[in-house]
Amino acid sequence: MVLAVKQNADEQQLQNLIKWIESLGVTVHLSRGSHTTIIGLVGDTASIDIDLIRSISIVETVKRIQEPYKSASRKFHPDDTIVDIAGHKIGGGHFQVISGPCSVECEEQICETALRVKAAGANLLRGGAFKPRTSPYDFQGLRADGIELLLKAKKLTGMPIVTEIMDASHIPMFEQVDVIQVGARNMQNFELLKMLGKLDKPILLKRGLANTITELLMSAEYILAGGNKNVILCERGIRTFETATRNTLDISAVPLIHQLSHLPIVIDPSHATGIPWMVEPLSVASVAAGVDGLIIEVHNDPINALCDGAQSLTPDQFDKTMVTISNMAKFVGKRL
Amino acid sequence: MVLAVKQNADEQQLQNLIKWIESLGVTVHLSRGSHTTIIGLVGDTASIDIDLIRSISIVETVKRIQEPYKSASRKFHPDDTIVDIAGHKIGGGHFQVISGPCSVECEEQICETALRVKAAGANLLRGGAFKPRTSPYDFQGLRADGIELLLKAKKLTGMPIVTEIMDASHIPMFEQVDVIQVGARNMQNFELLKMLGKLDKPILLKRGLANTITELLMSAEYILAGGNKNVILCERGIRTFETATRNTLDISAVPLIHQLSHLPIVIDPSHATGIPWMVEPLSVASVAAGVDGLIIEVHNDPINALCDGAQSLTPDQFDKTMVTISNMAKFVGKRL
Amino acid sequence: MVLAVKQNADEQQLQNLIKWIESLGVTVHLSRGSHTTIIGLVGDTASIDIDLIRSISIVETVKRIQEPYKSASRKFHPDDTIVDIAGHKIGGGHFQVISGPCSVECEEQICETALRVKAAGANLLRGGAFKPRTSPYDFQGLRADGIELLLKAKKLTGMPIVTEIMDASHIPMFEQVDVIQVGARNMQNFELLKMLGKLDKPILLKRGLANTITELLMSAEYILAGGNKNVILCERGIRTFETATRNTLDISAVPLIHQLSHLPIVIDPSHATGIPWMVEPLSVASVAAGVDGLIIEVHNDPINALCDGAQSLTPDQFDKTMVTISNMAKFVGKRL
Amino acid sequence: MVLAVKQNADEQQLQNLIKWIESLGVTVHLSRGSHTTIIGLVGDTASIDIDLIRSISIVETVKRIQEPYKSASRKFHPDDTIVDIAGHKIGGGHFQVISGPCSVECEEQICETALRVKAAGANLLRGGAFKPRTSPYDFQGLRADGIELLLKAKKLTGMPIVTEIMDASHIPMFEQVDVIQVGARNMQNFELLKMLGKLDKPILLKRGLANTITELLMSAEYILAGGNKNVILCERGIRTFETATRNTLDISAVPLIHQLSHLPIVIDPSHATGIPWMVEPLSVASVAAGVDGLIIEVHNDPINALCDGAQSLTPDQFDKTMVTISNMAKFVGKRL
Repeated sequence: MVLAVKQNADEQQLQNLIKWIESLGVTVHLSRGSHTTIIGLVGDTASIDIDLIRSISIVETVKRIQEPYKSASRKFHPDDTIVDIAGHKIGGGHFQVISGPCSVECEEQICETALRVKAAGANLLRGGAFKPRTSPYDFQGLRADGIELLLKAKKLTGMPIVTEIMDASHIPMFEQVDVIQVGARNMQNFELLKMLGKLDKPILLKRGLANTITELLMSAEYILAGGNKNVILCERGIRTFETATRNTLDISAVPLIHQLSHLPIVIDPSHATGIPWMVEPLSVASVAAGVDGLIIEVHNDPINALCDGAQSLTPDQFDKTMVTISNMAKFVGKRL
Repeated sequence: MVLAVKQNADEQQLQNLIKWIESLGVTVHLSRGSHTTIIGLVGDTASIDIDLIRSISIVETVKRIQEPYKSASRKFHPDDTIVDIAGHKIGGGHFQVISGPCSVECEEQICETALRVKAAGANLLRGGAFKPRTSPYDFQGLRADGIELLLKAKKLTGMPIVTEIMDASHIPMFEQVDVIQVGARNMQNFELLKMLGKLDKPILLKRGLANTITELLMSAEYILAGGNKNVILCERGIRTFETATRNTLDISAVPLIHQLSHLPIVIDPSHATGIPWMVEPLSVASVAAGVDGLIIEVHNDPINALCDGAQSLTPDQFDKTMVTISNMAKFVGKRL
Repeated sequence: MVLAVKQNADEQQLQNLIKWIESLGVTVHLSRGSHTTIIGLVGDTASIDIDLIRSISIVETVKRIQEPYKSASRKFHPDDTIVDIAGHKIGGGHFQVISGPCSVECEEQICETALRVKAAGANLLRGGAFKPRTSPYDFQGLRADGIELLLKAKKLTGMPIVTEIMDASHIPMFEQVDVIQVGARNMQNFELLKMLGKLDKPILLKRGLANTITELLMSAEYILAGGNKNVILCERGIRTFETATRNTLDISAVPLIHQLSHLPIVIDPSHATGIPWMVEPLSVASVAAGVDGLIIEVHNDPINALCDGAQSLTPDQFDKTMVTISNMAKFVGKRL
Repeated sequence: MVLAVKQNADEQQLQNLIKWIESLGVTVHLSRGSHTTIIGLVGDTASIDIDLIRSISIVETVKRIQEPYKSASRKFHPDDTIVDIAGHKIGGGHFQVISGPCSVECEEQICETALRVKAAGANLLRGGAFKPRTSPYDFQGLRADGIELLLKAKKLTGMPIVTEIMDASHIPMFEQVDVIQVGARNMQNFELLKMLGKLDKPILLKRGLANTITELLMSAEYILAGGNKNVILCERGIRTFETATRNTLDISAVPLIHQLSHLPIVIDPSHATGIPWMVEPLSVASVAAGVDGLIIEVHNDPINALCDGAQSLTPDQFDKTMVTISNMAKFVGKRL
C-alpha cells in the first residue's frame, strides 16, 4: 500500500501518521519529494482498511499495490484447485458442462431435459428451484418442491445437481444438493457467504453484474476463509452501456482469474447475452480462452418456459452445440 | 408491449402467436408492413414476462411501453406518499436529515455523535450494526450489540433510529428499530424484500450499484406488494467508469423518481463520492433538485473510525454543513 | 508515480530499471519488502509515460500519485481563471447562461430565438451550424450558411455567439465566432485541440461521453499548452448503464473540477438527459453545486426542430426557467 | 418505429400527430388501449429522426424496431463483404493478421519488426505515424516522416501497410498507404468519415471506447454512403467499471456483427487489455468466435518503445503466438 501526503501537512502530523501506521504491524518507507511525500507500507497489508487510511486528513491519495485477498490468491497457493463433484472433476485441466433448464417446472420437464443433456454429454444437471426475479409478479420458482424434483432427476440419471440458494435460512433444504449456486445478485450477500463457508459442499459463485474481478475474489475469500475450499467461480456477463446483448461477456476474466487465483472458473454464455444462437460461438470462444467449464440452459419446450426461456437452447440445438464444444475442448487439450 | 415479428415467419406461426398472446389476457393489434410486422399488446402488461415473449422463435424484438410496476407508480397513486417516523415526516414537502456514524463502535461514540447531530438539527439517527464489507478481514460491525447501543442513544436523545439489515433471519432483532435500511448490495435480495413487505415499519431502500431506476422501483414493488406502504428510496451513487469519485451520484434520479413514483427519495452524499468535503456541495445540489431528505455520515473521531471513516464529517463540519443545508431547504420551500 | 516490482525480478534487472528511471530526470526511492519491492518516483512525473513504465517486464503494477496535467492544475495556478467574452465574464464567481437552438435552421428562427433568450436574461447565444449526427441520413447543419445566420443574430441582438467546430480545416470560418465549442465526440480530437491552442479565442470544451475528469483536464491541457488560456469546461452527462435518461449528469464534476483546476465549468442540462422538463431541476441543482454557467437549448418551434428538438425548451418555458435559475444564482452569491 | 401517446393527449392533437407522421412517408397503424395508445410507423423509418419524434409534447416514449443503417446491414446485402488488400483478402472466410509496432520510431525498428512479423506469418504491416495521446507531453508520432518509414518497410518486405489518420487534411499524405485506420477516438469524427467515404481505399474503423455496436455500424454507414465499400470493422475493448484490464474486450461483438452486417470484423487484443501475456488467449478465443482477423502489436525492443510498449509482444513471443493462432484458425476452417 502506498500513500501520498498532502503538501500542507506539518512534520508533527506526519510523524503521528507514521507511528500509527507502524502500530498496524507494517513497516513504513518514507520518500520525501519536492512536491509530494510518499509513504510505502511494506508487509501484510491485506487486512488494512484502505478506507480508513483514506480518511486521514493529511492523506491525499492511497493505492493498494498488493491484492487484498490471500486464500484465493495463486501467490499463496500455486497449484490449480480441482473441485470434485461426485467424481466429476473441474479445474486443473478437467472440463465440465453443467446443463438444464432455467427453472424447474414439473417432473416431466426436468427429467426429460436431464436425460437429453446427459445423452448429449453434460455430466452435471442445473435447474432453478428458487428464482430471483426483478418483478414480484414473475414466476418465483417451485422452491422446496423444485429441489424435490431435481432429486428425482438425479436419481433417474445419476447426475449431480447444481441449484441456486437465495437465503441463508434455506441451507437445510440443500442437504442433498451437490453444488450450491450463489447468483449474481447475491455475490455480496456476505451473511450467506459466511454460512456457505462452514459447509464442505462445492459452491458455484457467480460474478455480480457490476462487480470487479477483485471483488469476486474477495467474495470467494469469504467462503474460503470459513474453511470451505470448494469454490468454483463463474463469469456471466457484466453490465455496460451496450444494449445489443443483455450483458457484456468479460472473456478476459478467464485468463486473468487463472493468473490471479487457483480456483476454477466457468462461463455462463446463456445469461451473458440472453440470445440463444450466441451460446455456441461464445462457448467455443470461452473454451479456447481456457475456461474450466460451461453452464448452458436447455429447455425441452422453450416457448412455454416460465422463466428466461429467452436464452435456452432446445435439446436438439444442445446436441449440436455439444459436438462443437467437445471438439474444441479436445483441441485445446482439456480432459472431458 | 410491442413486438416485431421476423421476416421469415409464416402465417400459421403468426396466428398461433397471436392466439397465445390473447390467452395472457391482453388485446392484440397487428400492423403488417412491407419489411416488418408489428404486434401491439394492449391492456395490463405489467405481469407479462418479457423474457418469455423474447424466447419465441418468430419474435425479432420486444419492447415494453408501460412501466412494469404498479403499486410504486404515480399513475395509480398520484399523491405523494408521506412516511411518518415517530412523528418526523418525510415526503410531500417534508424534509429530513438522517445522520450518525457509519458503524456503531461503542456507547460513548454513538451517544456523543447522536447528541451532536441532534443539536445540529438532524431528527433521525443512523448507525451501522451489521456492516457489509468487501473483505472478510475488515470490521463486520458489532451486530446485535450495535443495535443495543443504538437503542441507548435513542433513549438518551429521543431520536428514532435507522440501521441496516443484512439477512431476513435478523428481523426479530430489529423490533425496536424505527427504520430498517436495505443496503445497495441487497437491493435485489428478493427473499429479504418479501419478508420486509410483511412488516409495517418504514424501509429505507438503497439503489444498487448497477441498478436502473426501473429496477429500484421494482424492488420497492416487492415491499409494497407485500402490504408495507412505508418505503423510502435512496440514491447513493452508481458505478461508472469514472474513478475520481467512489461512485457517480445520479442526481437526475430525484426529479425522475418524483415523476414516476409517489415514494419519497433521499440522497446519501457520503457514500456517493467517499470524499468528505464534497458532502456539502452535493447536499445543497440535491436539496435544490427537490430531494426529500439526506443521509450524512458524521463521526466524532473520524481517524479512528473502524469503517468508512473516509467519508465522514466531524461534528464541527456537520454543524456548518447543516446551516447551509437548512438555508437551502427553506429557500426551496421544504418543511423541516 | 509508484511502481511495484515482480517477485521474481533479479537484482541486476532491478538496478538496470532504477538507472533507467533516473535517466528520465526523477529521483528514485526504493522500499524492499518481504513480498513486494516498491519504487517511488519523486520529482516531475507529469511527462513520464505511464504505459511505457508498465511495459517493463519486471514491473508488476504502476500507479500515478500526482496528476498528469500542469497548466490546467490549480496547484500551479491557485486563482480562478475568468474568461471574458466580449465583456461577459464567466468563472471566479461570474455566472452566465448560454442559450439558443440546437441547430440554426433559418434567419427567422435564429433571430426570433435570440431575441427571446436575450429578453429572458441569457447573455450568450448558441446555435449549431455544423452538427455531429450519428446517422449520415440525419440533418447535418447549415454549415457555413449557419454561421452567417448566427452573425446576423449577433448583429441584431449584440449577443456574442457560441458554435461548434467539427474539423480543424474549418477554423477560418470561425473568425467572427466569439466562443468555439468542441463537442463531446471531439474531446480527444487532438489535432483539432492543437490548432485551437494557437488561437486566443475562448474554447468551450465538452467532456466526452466516456471520458474521465482527468482526461477532460488533459484535453484542456492540449489547448493551454499551445498558449490559449481561455478554456471553459463543460459537463454534459456521461454514458452509463442507466437508460431512463439519455446520459447521466455527473454533478460531482462541478466541485471536483473547482478543486483540481482553476478553469470555469458549465453544465449542459439539455444534453445530459434529453428530457426538457428536467432542464429546470438540474439547472438549479447545478447552480447550487457552484457551476459557473449553463447551456440551455431553446427553440421557438420545437416540434419542427430539425435536430435534438427533443431536449429543447420553448421560449415561454425558458422565461420561467430563467427566473428560477436567476433566483438560485443570486441565493448562492453568483454575479450575473 | 413505435410510439406511445400520453394519456392526456386530446383527439385533435392525436390526429395532427398522425397526419404529420404520414407526411414523413410512412404508414401509421393505431392501437388504442385503455391506458395507452400506441402508434406504429411502418415503412422506411431509417431516415426518421427519433429525437424529433421524442420531442413532440404528446409522445410518451418512442422505440426503434428496425436498425437505423442500410448499406451496412446484412438484410440488404446478404453476402459477406471480402476486402482485398493488394491480394490479401479479409472476410468471407479469409483471415489476416495485421502486425507491427504501436509507433514507428526509426527505419531500423520498423524494418526489423516488419521482417520478423512477416516471417512469423503476418501479411499486413501496421505502425503508427500519427499518434493520438491523452497527454500533450507524450510522444505524438513521427507524422509524415513515419509514413515515409512505413513505405520503406513496405518496399523491403512487400507487405501492404495499415496506419492511422487523425485529421481529414492529412489524407493526401496517405496516398500510398494501403489501409487507412480510424482510431477509437475518431469513430464519430463525422467530417473525417465523410472524406474517407470518397476514397476507394480500405478503411479500418475502430469502435469507440463507449460506442454501441449500432453506433459503430452507423459510422461505417457514413463511409459506405459516400461510396467506399471497403470497410473493415474493429473491436478493441470498451470502457467499463472493471479496472483490472485497460478496457473490456466485447467478444460478443464478433458473432453479433456477423449477423447484423456483411462487413468483416477484426479484433485488437493488444489494446483491449493492455497486458501482453493476454494477447494469446484472447486471440485464440477471438478466432474461435469467428473473427476475420487480428491486429497485434509487436515491437523489437518493447522497453524502449516510445508509446504503448506496455501491450507489445517481442518478435519471439509473436512467433510462438502466431503458431497457436494459425492452428486455431485452421481448426475453425479459416483460409489464411
